[in-house]
Amino acid sequence: MHRMKITFKNMEVKMKEIMKRLQKFTSDRNWAQFHTPDNLAKSIVIEASELLINYQYDDAYFNLDNVKDELADVLAYCLMLCDHYQFDLTEIMNRKIDKNEKKYPIDKVYGKSDKYTKL
Amino acid sequence: MHRMKITFKNMEVKMKEIMKRLQKFTSDRNWAQFHTPDNLAKSIVIEASELLINYQYDDAYFNLDNVKDELADVLAYCLMLCDHYQFDLTEIMNRKIDKNEKKYPIDKVYGKSDKYTKL
Amino acid sequence: MHRMKITFKNMEVKMKEIMKRLQKFTSDRNWAQFHTPDNLAKSIVIEASELLINYQYDDAYFNLDNVKDELADVLAYCLMLCDHYQFDLTEIMNRKIDKNEKKYPIDKVYGKSDKYTKL
Amino acid sequence: MHRMKITFKNMEVKMKEIMKRLQKFTSDRNWAQFHTPDNLAKSIVIEASELLINYQYDDAYFNLDNVKDELADVLAYCLMLCDHYQFDLTEIMNRKIDKNEKKYPIDKVYGKSDKYTKL
Repeated sequence: MHRMKITFKNMEVKMKEIMKRLQKFTSDRNWAQFHTPDNLAKSIVIEASELLINYQYDDAYFNLDNVKDELADVLAYCLMLCDHYQFDLTEIMNRKIDKNEKKYPIDKVYGKSDKYTKL
Repeated sequence: MHRMKITFKNMEVKMKEIMKRLQKFTSDRNWAQFHTPDNLAKSIVIEASELLINYQYDDAYFNLDNVKDELADVLAYCLMLCDHYQFDLTEIMNRKIDKNEKKYPIDKVYGKSDKYTKL
Repeated sequence: MHRMKITFKNMEVKMKEIMKRLQKFTSDRNWAQFHTPDNLAKSIVIEASELLINYQYDDAYFNLDNVKDELADVLAYCLMLCDHYQFDLTEIMNRKIDKNEKKYPIDKVYGKSDKYTKL
Repeated sequence: MHRMKITFKNMEVKMKEIMKRLQKFTSDRNWAQFHTPDNLAKSIVIEASELLINYQYDDAYFNLDNVKDELADVLAYCLMLCDHYQFDLTEIMNRKIDKNEKKYPIDKVYGKSDKYTKL
């Protein structure tokens, strides 16, 4: 298994700060009116597609700085949607991993990523 | 400004656990081979679109449980992409909010979300 | 039932011309190398998301000229993918409408667009 | 330049039939209420992402029959959006190819698909 490269140091403090910045950014501009769940969901897809442009034609459009920016935008809209519904981010993630572990039993799917296989 | 509903309690410990679970899930199934950055970016869009289905026809397809699941999937693929590039999640988010604050000056965009306005 | 507003006059001649223009545009620039089915599929999503930006925040970003352009891009990439696989465009559309008519029987779904309803 | 594989034989008659079938399908189910431009744009992205699943993990999820179905869905929603705005499909496509020919001059972009290149 590969070593974890990502760090989550002081994540609690830092994420609170980020969430506060996102809310202040929105309220300073009177943009909360635009942030309905429907619009946030559209925004997540739109930013995810802008991220995908980096891989649209192999490496031709790739730009690491742009990957950072678009990924940050996807995450920001995800946080705003979590906040809207009062989801506990770690709870919904753990819940989904629980489901996936059951849905994809190791002995049936090892080395295969076959969606259409009857498991 | 609205009250923050989301909590990030023990986020550092919990996110480490989640990242470990995602990595174990992947390596147990020998699926790391599928998780190239290109494929992860496609997966983020695909899960984001599955989230959007909840809002496709107003409320007709809306299901709060499914919103949780699809949002969790988007976040999981985002974390895997962060991990691949060794991005610091909070750093890329703060960096992008800095940029947005400059790009959208309060006095120019207040109450308008007009993309085509010359600022 | 609402009157059909769209016209398909001389569609055979016009579509052949458009397909020739798309192919000449691509070969003049030596871009066929980028148009693998995988990349074309990514491009369809990316252009579809650019279309969606027009509806991202209600009317704030809406621009009818841009709707035309992004829709044209989606259609162009769809035609290129059809061409790659030698699909008969009208055949695949009729085939899918046949399936949908069976999947969504009128008496079960009238006025409901409920995906999760057991039919 | 590669030979055109796609055919558009009797396209005018066939497309009229398809458009009629789409409208009858919709009105028989009283679904026109769901087909606002906003919802149609979301549907195009959603179907495009379902098409992309065929390429999500290289060939693992690829299914040619599913490619036909999802591509047909993308095209159906595009036609419905064209019909809504009374766009002439061939006109908007030719208009966009005109723009692209100017935007990407052959001598500047030959063999490069570089978005960030200053042209």
